[in-house]
Amino acid sequence: MKFKEQLNNYIKLVNNQLIGYLDCKEGYNSTLIEAMKYSLFAGGKRLRPVLALSAYGLFGDDTDKIMPYACALEMIHTYSLIHDDLPSMDDDDYRRGKPTNHRVFGEGIAILAGDGLLNYSFEIMLDNALEQDEPHPHIRSIREIACAAGINGMIAGQAVDLESENKNIDKKTLEYIHLNKTAAMIVAALKIGAIIGGASEEDIKCMEQTGLNLGFAFQVKDDILDIIGDESKLGKSTGGDIDKHKATYPALFGLETSIAYTKELTENVKLLLNPYRDRSNFLLELSDYLMNREF
Amino acid sequence: MKFKEQLNNYIKLVNNQLIGYLDCKEGYNSTLIEAMKYSLFAGGKRLRPVLALSAYGLFGDDTDKIMPYACALEMIHTYSLIHDDLPSMDDDDYRRGKPTNHRVFGEGIAILAGDGLLNYSFEIMLDNALEQDEPHPHIRSIREIACAAGINGMIAGQAVDLESENKNIDKKTLEYIHLNKTAAMIVAALKIGAIIGGASEEDIKCMEQTGLNLGFAFQVKDDILDIIGDESKLGKSTGGDIDKHKATYPALFGLETSIAYTKELTENVKLLLNPYRDRSNFLLELSDYLMNREF
Repeated sequence: MKFKEQLNNYIKLVNNQLIGYLDCKEGYNSTLIEAMKYSLFAGGKRLRPVLALSAYGLFGDDTDKIMPYACALEMIHTYSLIHDDLPSMDDDDYRRGKPTNHRVFGEGIAILAGDGLLNYSFEIMLDNALEQDEPHPHIRSIREIACAAGINGMIAGQAVDLESENKNIDKKTLEYIHLNKTAAMIVAALKIGAIIGGASEEDIKCMEQTGLNLGFAFQVKDDILDIIGDESKLGKSTGGDIDKHKATYPALFGLETSIAYTKELTENVKLLLNPYRDRSNFLLELSDYLMNREF
Repeated sequence: MKFKEQLNNYIKLVNNQLIGYLDCKEGYNSTLIEAMKYSLFAGGKRLRPVLALSAYGLFGDDTDKIMPYACALEMIHTYSLIHDDLPSMDDDDYRRGKPTNHRVFGEGIAILAGDGLLNYSFEIMLDNALEQDEPHPHIRSIREIACAAGINGMIAGQAVDLESENKNIDKKTLEYIHLNKTAAMIVAALKIGAIIGGASEEDIKCMEQTGLNLGFAFQVKDDILDIIGDESKLGKSTGGDIDKHKATYPALFGLETSIAYTKELTENVKLLLNPYRDRSNFLLELSDYLMNREF
């Protein structure tokens, strides 16, 4: 199967499953559910679920097994965007070309929609884990996701990012933010793919390393696009990082060094995936695709 | 052991364990951790953990087993208060006699501190579940808590409460709010006590019913105190519900009917606990204590 076809297949699988999870009966909480759906179906790239599915594909062959976790990753990612966009955080009016959640539903419901997506992701994962005869790999996977998303992961990254606005920060602080705010969840996606796929500890470790390289590359590419990207393709205005005096890799080291860095990281990914030969073709192409993206 | 002594013992156990969980090394995320601690150690009654411990005490005898879940309940409760107090929600400046989280740390960090407490509660519970040889009751308990806290539980209750401000709502809507915003987590506390204690399905069901009665009684008592309570004992100003035109049981049915209702609910609790005889003394006294409280 061609790369793009496989990518679209994965995205379709994830979208269908997400629709199923959010297909709730009309009830008192319908505004809350509507707000959650609004951001969950606002045209995300589904990168984290696709990474989980493709890492799983290296080791297992029943994608249903990884789906609850893949969808949970997307819900957690979406909640983080809703909260990040709030006026007291990044104060963004648009996301993927559409008004941000709080601009449509108000701040109160937007905060609750974010809380709801985070909480619901655990409900889904736990429902699935409870059905298993051998639940340990499932508990381990949920724990991986929780830690990646948590106060020593994504939330920590966002807190330090928030505190660093309008400040000159050093390389170590910037790396802390990138590692936690972005790379941690990408690492988790690849790791749980391996864990649920029944991979060896060595393979799980390799997926972790792949995720680290891919995660940093993804974030630096994002920061590059914020400077030289096409607004119509990105669905948001560029230059936001500069306006907010955000510390980014290009701001600290310049555009050229940043581009070279993403290339180096992508080369590392290729080396790490080498032992998996043909089976890793999709992940390899995905990694190139992410580096060459304009959105 | 006397009731008050036992209550203080339970509270001390919970506080010590919570301190242990939040005892993090100084790091980049220290503001986030400080904000989480600020609200977690602001003098809460620890009602939900105490309920979990006392329900556990009906069936099991190793309190260590229930502690991670008891603490998780308190973290989730605290996160909900931090988010509820935000300007875009209830807009409260004081809680338990101290400035609310966002007044001390700013809205952005307050939102993240709430997110962090919710997420961390799952990290703690999953860490514990992963260590178990028989993880199913543990997964089930985490799932109970997640569902009680979620989009068909506490978050839903808060969303409908928020939407109902300045509106005339009917009894059914009010009951939906009370059931989900308050009773759900109290039910979960009692149920997980039974589940981790190895209780029968019948006993688990009985704890659920006890929780429902106790949960409604607790909320109506709260609403009564908002009208006739002593501000210095409550640690917050009274009359807030009326000022915000919040629908409450006393507002809909008057003070006298509300007091009678709490008495009826407390009687139901006594009937439900009857089969447990002496073992349920603490829970019975706790239920009376909650009904007679002035804070």
